[in-house]
Amino acid sequence: MRTKLRYGQVGGTLKAFIGGVHRKAIAINEQADLVAGCFSSSNAQSNIECGKHYGIEQGRIYPDYRTMAEMESAREDTIDFVVICTPNRFHYEVARAFIEKGIHVVCEKPLCFSIEEAEELCRLAKEKNVLFCVTYTYTGYNMVKQAKELIQNGEIGEVVDVKAEYLQDWLMDEVDCAESSGKKLSVWRMNPEFSGISNCVGDIGTHIEETVSYMTGCHVRKLAAMLDRFGHELDLNANMLVEFDNGAHGTFSCSQIAAGHYNGLAIRIFGTKGAIEWEQEHPDFLKVTLKGKPTQIYTRAAHTSGHALEMNRIPSGHPEGLTMAFANIYKSFADALLNIINGKSNDGSWDLDFPDAEDGLRGVKFINACVASSAEGAVWVEI
Amino acid sequence: MRTKLRYGQVGGTLKAFIGGVHRKAIAINEQADLVAGCFSSSNAQSNIECGKHYGIEQGRIYPDYRTMAEMESAREDTIDFVVICTPNRFHYEVARAFIEKGIHVVCEKPLCFSIEEAEELCRLAKEKNVLFCVTYTYTGYNMVKQAKELIQNGEIGEVVDVKAEYLQDWLMDEVDCAESSGKKLSVWRMNPEFSGISNCVGDIGTHIEETVSYMTGCHVRKLAAMLDRFGHELDLNANMLVEFDNGAHGTFSCSQIAAGHYNGLAIRIFGTKGAIEWEQEHPDFLKVTLKGKPTQIYTRAAHTSGHALEMNRIPSGHPEGLTMAFANIYKSFADALLNIINGKSNDGSWDLDFPDAEDGLRGVKFINACVASSAEGAVWVEI
Amino acid sequence: MRTKLRYGQVGGTLKAFIGGVHRKAIAINEQADLVAGCFSSSNAQSNIECGKHYGIEQGRIYPDYRTMAEMESAREDTIDFVVICTPNRFHYEVARAFIEKGIHVVCEKPLCFSIEEAEELCRLAKEKNVLFCVTYTYTGYNMVKQAKELIQNGEIGEVVDVKAEYLQDWLMDEVDCAESSGKKLSVWRMNPEFSGISNCVGDIGTHIEETVSYMTGCHVRKLAAMLDRFGHELDLNANMLVEFDNGAHGTFSCSQIAAGHYNGLAIRIFGTKGAIEWEQEHPDFLKVTLKGKPTQIYTRAAHTSGHALEMNRIPSGHPEGLTMAFANIYKSFADALLNIINGKSNDGSWDLDFPDAEDGLRGVKFINACVASSAEGAVWVEI
Amino acid sequence: MRTKLRYGQVGGTLKAFIGGVHRKAIAINEQADLVAGCFSSSNAQSNIECGKHYGIEQGRIYPDYRTMAEMESAREDTIDFVVICTPNRFHYEVARAFIEKGIHVVCEKPLCFSIEEAEELCRLAKEKNVLFCVTYTYTGYNMVKQAKELIQNGEIGEVVDVKAEYLQDWLMDEVDCAESSGKKLSVWRMNPEFSGISNCVGDIGTHIEETVSYMTGCHVRKLAAMLDRFGHELDLNANMLVEFDNGAHGTFSCSQIAAGHYNGLAIRIFGTKGAIEWEQEHPDFLKVTLKGKPTQIYTRAAHTSGHALEMNRIPSGHPEGLTMAFANIYKSFADALLNIINGKSNDGSWDLDFPDAEDGLRGVKFINACVASSAEGAVWVEI
Repeated sequence: MRTKLRYGQVGGTLKAFIGGVHRKAIAINEQADLVAGCFSSSNAQSNIECGKHYGIEQGRIYPDYRTMAEMESAREDTIDFVVICTPNRFHYEVARAFIEKGIHVVCEKPLCFSIEEAEELCRLAKEKNVLFCVTYTYTGYNMVKQAKELIQNGEIGEVVDVKAEYLQDWLMDEVDCAESSGKKLSVWRMNPEFSGISNCVGDIGTHIEETVSYMTGCHVRKLAAMLDRFGHELDLNANMLVEFDNGAHGTFSCSQIAAGHYNGLAIRIFGTKGAIEWEQEHPDFLKVTLKGKPTQIYTRAAHTSGHALEMNRIPSGHPEGLTMAFANIYKSFADALLNIINGKSNDGSWDLDFPDAEDGLRGVKFINACVASSAEGAVWVEI
Repeated sequence: MRTKLRYGQVGGTLKAFIGGVHRKAIAINEQADLVAGCFSSSNAQSNIECGKHYGIEQGRIYPDYRTMAEMESAREDTIDFVVICTPNRFHYEVARAFIEKGIHVVCEKPLCFSIEEAEELCRLAKEKNVLFCVTYTYTGYNMVKQAKELIQNGEIGEVVDVKAEYLQDWLMDEVDCAESSGKKLSVWRMNPEFSGISNCVGDIGTHIEETVSYMTGCHVRKLAAMLDRFGHELDLNANMLVEFDNGAHGTFSCSQIAAGHYNGLAIRIFGTKGAIEWEQEHPDFLKVTLKGKPTQIYTRAAHTSGHALEMNRIPSGHPEGLTMAFANIYKSFADALLNIINGKSNDGSWDLDFPDAEDGLRGVKFINACVASSAEGAVWVEI
Repeated sequence: MRTKLRYGQVGGTLKAFIGGVHRKAIAINEQADLVAGCFSSSNAQSNIECGKHYGIEQGRIYPDYRTMAEMESAREDTIDFVVICTPNRFHYEVARAFIEKGIHVVCEKPLCFSIEEAEELCRLAKEKNVLFCVTYTYTGYNMVKQAKELIQNGEIGEVVDVKAEYLQDWLMDEVDCAESSGKKLSVWRMNPEFSGISNCVGDIGTHIEETVSYMTGCHVRKLAAMLDRFGHELDLNANMLVEFDNGAHGTFSCSQIAAGHYNGLAIRIFGTKGAIEWEQEHPDFLKVTLKGKPTQIYTRAAHTSGHALEMNRIPSGHPEGLTMAFANIYKSFADALLNIINGKSNDGSWDLDFPDAEDGLRGVKFINACVASSAEGAVWVEI
Repeated sequence: MRTKLRYGQVGGTLKAFIGGVHRKAIAINEQADLVAGCFSSSNAQSNIECGKHYGIEQGRIYPDYRTMAEMESAREDTIDFVVICTPNRFHYEVARAFIEKGIHVVCEKPLCFSIEEAEELCRLAKEKNVLFCVTYTYTGYNMVKQAKELIQNGEIGEVVDVKAEYLQDWLMDEVDCAESSGKKLSVWRMNPEFSGISNCVGDIGTHIEETVSYMTGCHVRKLAAMLDRFGHELDLNANMLVEFDNGAHGTFSCSQIAAGHYNGLAIRIFGTKGAIEWEQEHPDFLKVTLKGKPTQIYTRAAHTSGHALEMNRIPSGHPEGLTMAFANIYKSFADALLNIINGKSNDGSWDLDFPDAEDGLRGVKFINACVASSAEGAVWVEI
């Protein structure tokens, strides 16, 4: 019986932020070893140095992802899965290359830029029978799982309203032009070549959509979105009205110019019998209010059940943080993959508790709908 | 020189909640004595008992508001102003009667139900040269005034986004029908006869509009509103996208079915250089963030200036509460009225720092626009 | 049956802060009218002007408290109670004068300076059968009453630990001498002539003792106190270990030099089955945790019972504030006094729910014990 | 130039909590590889299985720590440092064995049980010139480092008062005996054989002492401590008055029976010019108040400098959590060790920013003083 997996990484040099988060999240779980990679296809020396520092043998440090997919799939001890941390615009082609070789995939979000590409990846993954995880980080938090558990169990009744937001302030200089003259303002996120059709909604708005979907099981059916560009090519701020498939209404807001907010994903779900509220900046806590009762503060590890309980790693009151949320997603993925590899039939004792290509596709559709709505004056658009 | 005013009240029996708040707010200021009134025109005995308990001489306890306006305006020691706390549907006619006699007016919100009536009251008040105050309570809080002061002084730059909400939960039973069968659900607020065309937006949504207007000086230019009625005649929940006259965007939400929220008016103003946030349930504090700097917690009496400073009554850290916010509105009104009566010209050393009939009119327009937008499927409507 | 009381005030000119709070608190209740007073014995003109502004007839504005006690007690329509808001050092003699005439008393805290005087007032009040209320403000808050109710009902089991503090920062300049040179530092509170043997413990430490006693029913049996004077005659900061009469332990801290704290009375009671926490700066909420369960946020008017429920004046979520806490104490006092005057026997349907002379005496003993302990190097001292 | 270190671990089976935290913290840094170990000396099979799972070659999985120290020190590619995660009572002997072989040491806290042993380890480490890190976790948090930085820079002036506490609730059943009958109450922490002379102070009280020392540079000079045992052999709750070597006073409290607190280390430092407050359950934030100014909320990565800035790993608003604090300590240790190994002289460009054996010794003295004070009735004891 296998107890450890082998994986490779595409992207993720020593200096790259998100690639490091992936490796650390995997390392924390002690479930998989990094044995192959192509960390940079544009800089051969950096590629090799990185590989060496990560302890990879020379022969498995590849010059490009196609070679890597080719060579790895031909080995006896092939990697079990690949982690894709390239710039967003390459996600589609890299993912496709590995799926076609039957190698399981973990891909950074967004899955890709166009709905067609996303649908193609969904189709292929199904056809090739590979697990495909899209790392929407926030679904990995224990208390997000606890919220899902409570809502599924009917604790707050039928969902009737959702208020969710994701506020940051790191692009305020882009709006406050008077002060920023002379500063180098352009960042890759605001360049359509790198970010596609949306900056703010594409980067963080999509996290709102996925986290709410994960928590509630409700998906946005139509929306009216107002994107603010402040003279730039892409959006920096957005507000939207949403209607879910169960008829519930609500608002989504995302911003990169909201002073005093750093990574303020905050979700509030209102039901007929109660409400649940969660904030990413204080992720180990959940506010749960049942009709007429005092609000209760659920605390990670002290008041958790189901997947939220299984994922507890350190005692209550010891903050787990974002890297652990990431690790949780990898744990769900690796647990499932080990079960599959070890031939454990899915008899209900385990499930696939991570965001997949279908979630990635829904995210791409959401972004497209927002941009389309805003272009027409924030009219209502169906997804 | 007059230092004390005389006033009368219409409505406000011993059992009535809001009428008592008005009397207490006035009593706290020690600037005016209650000397006349018509507390109930439907119950003569209650009317007289109330009057006596309030210490009013028999001859100035009137059977109806018309007689009161008539008789009082004929006296030498006529009341300086009247406080109108009747059911909302009578506001218009009562206010009109006193304005016509040249008696200054303080009226509970909403000013009235129709735009025509509101415009008429604005016109008349101007013509008769009477002060007309509409008691939008929350504009009385010191830290709301401090927010206004900071925004006027340009501390947060140009306003670019506003997120405001007013959440309550006291009508949850109206939605959760399964559980509430057998309970007496109907409340007057949900009856159009008493509430006009809107319950939730009319009662609390309008406070959002006024408080934001007061703080920022920005007024809603157009909006798209989604009102939820859950099978009832009037709305219990609403979400809207708004655009202000300076081009800023944002969201307004109000609800009477949001579990865990009691009187949750919360306003966040985002500007090009910073942001200001205020919550009614913790009214003595203001979060102020300047771009790139740590969020600062301004505290009443410790970090106040301008009108916010003038209105401080007790030292910082001693909560002042809602009744004091009410008293602040009355203080602004009474200060101005005493200045006028004492012939002090408005040379810039004082101003009219209270919501007036124009604010009341704007509120009525706002409510009408919300209802119209929602009826057409949350389309955009200009105000 | 009497429904309204008559009262007089000693001290409390227009400029005096606490005297105004008393009048406003009484006015809010609409249970008593101010009909007599001696507002200043040192400034006859101010005395008369104040009396007039408050609407008192000339003949009942007295030049000194002795005359007032004499004359009022001789009238048919004598005042039912007197409110004493003089400087602290006069409390004893003024209170004594009115008690001796059989007039009920409400006295600002501290009751007086010496244990002997306090014992004498207790004895006299009992002998003369007068109600004697000492206005320890914080016992008037609804959620302090709710805490008492829950503890009395055994919700948190046996009290085993208490952590309480009262932090302010308004005397920081007194410590930071380098910066304050040239500033006028001396304040009356730091002068033994006006404050007695303690400044900080005497002013605010005693509120800790009383509020904890009121909530828990536990009284401090012995303590070890460290008072910091920073070169001044009286203390500005204090920390103490306490042992209660039931064996529970804990810490009390009070300070006037704690930056960032304005009126930070915060009390945490730990029991064998749960805990209760309350903060004066957010007085409408109570944190209640039962062993193993999520912390619950009790909210005034939404989750109140007993006296806490009776005292609710405005709906939940509308902050009541300090003046309302004061009004609650007066309501308890006036309700009781009306019951007595109207001959309603104390059959268990009502009680004396306000701090009395015995509480005042215990406070004086507490202050004395703190000073004695600290003088000997923070040794243990029995109360 | 070496860029990676080799390390071994003593203790830390797959099931052991704290051993895993150490490995994960090291893995996150990607600065050291686990190459040797003795994970269990009592269970040979578990020892070997663990070693294999961690990827260690068979020959470097040792049956006991003495053999490991012996064999490793004899290799060319000897481990650079050892991580000691055994039960506390073995810390001394294991640490001693490795120091004597000149191998650098990272040891879990407490360093050991007796002052003599602690002094011996300090002496030996100095003599053998080995780095000795004691993993007082909380000194690793960025905002604890930021607090230290601000205090060192004089931002809050001279420290005059410290209020610190560490509250948990996981041993409430031990107090509430009525309810717990029949439950298995005994835990190893309450057994002197495993915990030495103190449970609560020894486990968590010592973290207060170290974190305050690290932040302020002030050390406790004398204390009066009241330890509560509730009928057990060791303490579950403690309150103390402390005096620091600069004359500042304050209180320390620690508890394992404080309902509603999970890992509530909270430290407040009051100075002549301001105050700083930090809470472990929300570790990425720091409250900083300068005299007369609004409290500022410093946020990790947004408002950090010095070591606090260097240690930032992920952007502001993304919680880093406890494991990252642990990783920070290891980063400081590994950076220093690499500097030493690579012969980089300590020219002021780097320092030893981690708790060392001297801190461990001071912790042992603190625990002893607390127990001695309490035994005599909470008398004052010098450290």
